[in-house]
This record gives sequence, C-alpha cells and structure tokens, in this order.
Amino acid sequence: MISKQQIKAIHSLRLKKYRDQRGLFVGEGPKVVGELLHTFECTFVAATASWIEANRQIIPAGIPCETVQPEELAKASLLETPQQVLAIFRQKENTLPTDSALQSELCLALDTVQDPGNLGTILRLARWFGINYVICSPGTADIYSPKVVQAAMGALGKVSVGYTPLPQYLSGIPADIPVYGTFLDGTNIYDTPLSYRGIIVMGNEGNGISQLTASHVTHRLYIPPYPAGTPTIESLNVGVATAITCAEFRRRANTNS
Amino acid sequence: MISKQQIKAIHSLRLKKYRDQRGLFVGEGPKVVGELLHTFECTFVAATASWIEANRQIIPAGIPCETVQPEELAKASLLETPQQVLAIFRQKENTLPTDSALQSELCLALDTVQDPGNLGTILRLARWFGINYVICSPGTADIYSPKVVQAAMGALGKVSVGYTPLPQYLSGIPADIPVYGTFLDGTNIYDTPLSYRGIIVMGNEGNGISQLTASHVTHRLYIPPYPAGTPTIESLNVGVATAITCAEFRRRANTNS
Repeated sequence: MISKQQIKAIHSLRLKKYRDQRGLFVGEGPKVVGELLHTFECTFVAATASWIEANRQIIPAGIPCETVQPEELAKASLLETPQQVLAIFRQKENTLPTDSALQSELCLALDTVQDPGNLGTILRLARWFGINYVICSPGTADIYSPKVVQAAMGALGKVSVGYTPLPQYLSGIPADIPVYGTFLDGTNIYDTPLSYRGIIVMGNEGNGISQLTASHVTHRLYIPPYPAGTPTIESLNVGVATAITCAEFRRRANTNS
Repeated sequence: MISKQQIKAIHSLRLKKYRDQRGLFVGEGPKVVGELLHTFECTFVAATASWIEANRQIIPAGIPCETVQPEELAKASLLETPQQVLAIFRQKENTLPTDSALQSELCLALDTVQDPGNLGTILRLARWFGINYVICSPGTADIYSPKVVQAAMGALGKVSVGYTPLPQYLSGIPADIPVYGTFLDGTNIYDTPLSYRGIIVMGNEGNGISQLTASHVTHRLYIPPYPAGTPTIESLNVGVATAITCAEFRRRANTNS
C-alpha cells in the first residue's frame, strides 16, 4: 500500500528543483533498479509482490518497502509503462576527474547536450567503453531526470559525473592533456593520431560545440561520411557521434597495446 | 486559417491505421519539411506567414497552403513544441533492394527495432554512411510515424525502406551475399574481414536478433567493450551499435580503396 503523500513525493521528483532540494531521484524497472541498488543509497522501494519475493536479498534492510498492486504502481510511476518496481535513491556528489585520472584516462565532456535520451545513451556507452568520467556543462540535461535515468539503463552509478562551466574547466587543466572535439571542418578521425588519454568534447544537438569551449579544443576531429568527401548538409545525432568517436579511440588503444 | 476538419485529419495521421488507409504522413519543422519537400509529394502545408514568405520557391504549386497563427499551428501540430511549419506528404511504396544493389552495396536489415527514436536515428546514420536500403521486419516501427519522421531529420526520403519478414527474405537472396549481425558471442568486429557489400542485421532493443533471422547470418560480429574482455552485463543501444558497425564497414572500405 502506498499513500497519497508518498505518490506526491515521488511525482515531485520529476522536477529538478525538488530533486535538488531533497537530493533524491527516481529509478524504475527491474533492470534499472537492480543496477542502481548496487551503486546508490536507496531510501524507498515500491514494488509488486512478485518482484519483492524474487529480490529480497538486494533490498536494503531498514528502508520503507511497500508492496503495491499494479494499479497503485501505475499511479506512482513516472513512466508511461510502469515496470514492477520503483525506487528512490540519494544523488551522489558532483564529481570531476581527479588529476591522476586526467593524466591517464579518456574522459568525456558534454557541451549542452540537452536531450535526456541522448545523455542517457552517452552514459550507457561511456560505461561500455570504460570511460569513468563525464564532465557536463551547466546547460546539459540533468543526469537525475527520469528520462536520463531510464535511458542510461543503470549506467548512472558506474560513471562519475560533474557539472561545471567547460571553458573555465578546460583552461585549468594541464597543458599536455589533449582535448578532442568533433567538427564539420575537423580532420578525418581515421587519419589522426589519437591518445589513450585526454578529453573528448561533444557538442549541443543543434549548435555543436560552443565557440568559447571550442577555443580549448587542441585536436579538431571529423567523422567522414561515405563515400568520403560526399557533400552533406546532414550531421550525426550526438549519441551516435559520441559512440563512433569513443569506439575509434578504443579500437586504436587496443591495436597499439 | 485552418479548419477543424483539417486539424482532425492531421491528428488522425498519428495512427498507423489512418496513415496506411490514406497513404499519407506528417512532417514538421523547417529542417524536416524542407528536406521532405525535395523527396516526397506534398499534399498540404500549414505554416506561419514568415516561413511561407521565406520558402515560397519550395512550396509546390497547386496544393492547399494555409497561413496560420502560432496558436493555430499548436492545435494542428503532433509535436510538443510546434515549429513554424507542418506538412502532409504521400508515402512511398515499400522498396526492397534491387538485385544489383544487393550485389554491390551495403544494406541494413532491422529485426523488430521497435523504438521510433532508434529507427529515426538509424535512418539518419544510414544516409550519412551512404546506405541506400533499409529492410525492416514487420515488427519494426513504422517509418511514417511522427516520432520516426522527426528523429530521421529528413533522411526519410534519401533511404529506400521496405518491410518484409526477414527469415524468408534472407533465405531468398543469392548465397554469396554476406549477412552480418552483431551478437554478444560474435567475433571481434575489428579482427574480422568486412566486405564492401552485404546485409548488416541489427536486432530488437531487448532481445537482439531473433533465432530464425539469426540462422541466416553468415558472419557473427561483436563490438568489444573496453578494456577488451571486460565482462559486462550491459549492451549497447541499437542506434549506437548500428553506428559503430556502419562506421567500421565504411572505414575499412575507405582504407582498402
């Protein structure tokens, strides 16, 4: 049984304002909740009897855990199609890469990636490609928004995310850290030496990388269309461009090692 | 001015049943409509005075073209955020690859890709990578659904799409055409010779490629996570996996040529 107040509290977490005030966010569905329970502090669970029965061991002791009917879950859910379980988690602190991570790892920076689905996709592929840090401009979607949480498919807890103005951040990193970005007038990524470390900047859906941020990019890359040299007025979706770029960095790292 | 009947007719095109009955679909926004006007027969336009003023040359002669106020456009629009122009277009015929295309080109086949956003993303990247044919299983999203049309960003008219049961289709193609698919237990794509032609099969969001379709795949590929060999319970979003796969085929074709 879930109270009207609990439902109201859950629904308030749709909005960033209330998420930030309370430091909480919602995750839903067996896959997402199952993953998030390993990586975030959980404060509340509402689930069907069968989910609770099957997942007793992973539900943290001492937190409110309500058994609900599917109709009740539908009322509480932020999704169009509620899926067995909904849980509330505590947000983690804003985390930027440590100095030693910057010196040795590949990180992603997102310059105003506004679509929650794109941000979720990028977090999911960051995890696949072993990228531990994602640095977001303040205009990037909120990682704790329900659409991002669901699109990231549980990757949220495995990738450290921090929000900070990118031009200032990039101007403060050591000068020997390469900063890559994709541009329509960049050099063919397949003809460019790529480091095993550095920051890959990806830009906004409509406008790409902002001028101020672009001024800190040391290597301008370009994903060639096919056949090469085809004049195109098209661009690639930012999730897709991030995927192709990260895959190529990782292919190179595996080939050279 | 746009009539209530016109608005009703537009809204009915949200549903596949009415789209198919009437052989029509809706596109919205300057970018999407601008592209579709080059590639589809247009039967109706509703737009703000300023859009019409700026685009007189591309509006086909002799079709109803209504000047609307933003409030009217909002009522007619199928989008949350209407954008200056809405148009109705005539669907094209279901088109499968010609025999000579199969012998010489790379084609995509989608096995129940259900999410409209994913299908739109795939059409957009097919265009980027010069893939002219996309073969869809009957369970794949409808390319004319509003979400696909908008996510494809105008790529719809540049790629030929046909719906057909994939197992039957793949059993009927010449035996020398390679059929690729991505699987969690495939061989590393970067260690596998890739042809400049053939069919790349991509699978459903939750279940991957169906068993029946998989039995026709001649080359099972795998996109490696990083570091290589990391055990992972994750998978990549189908749009992202398609992008990485197509990019690698095209990189190889460019390198060998």
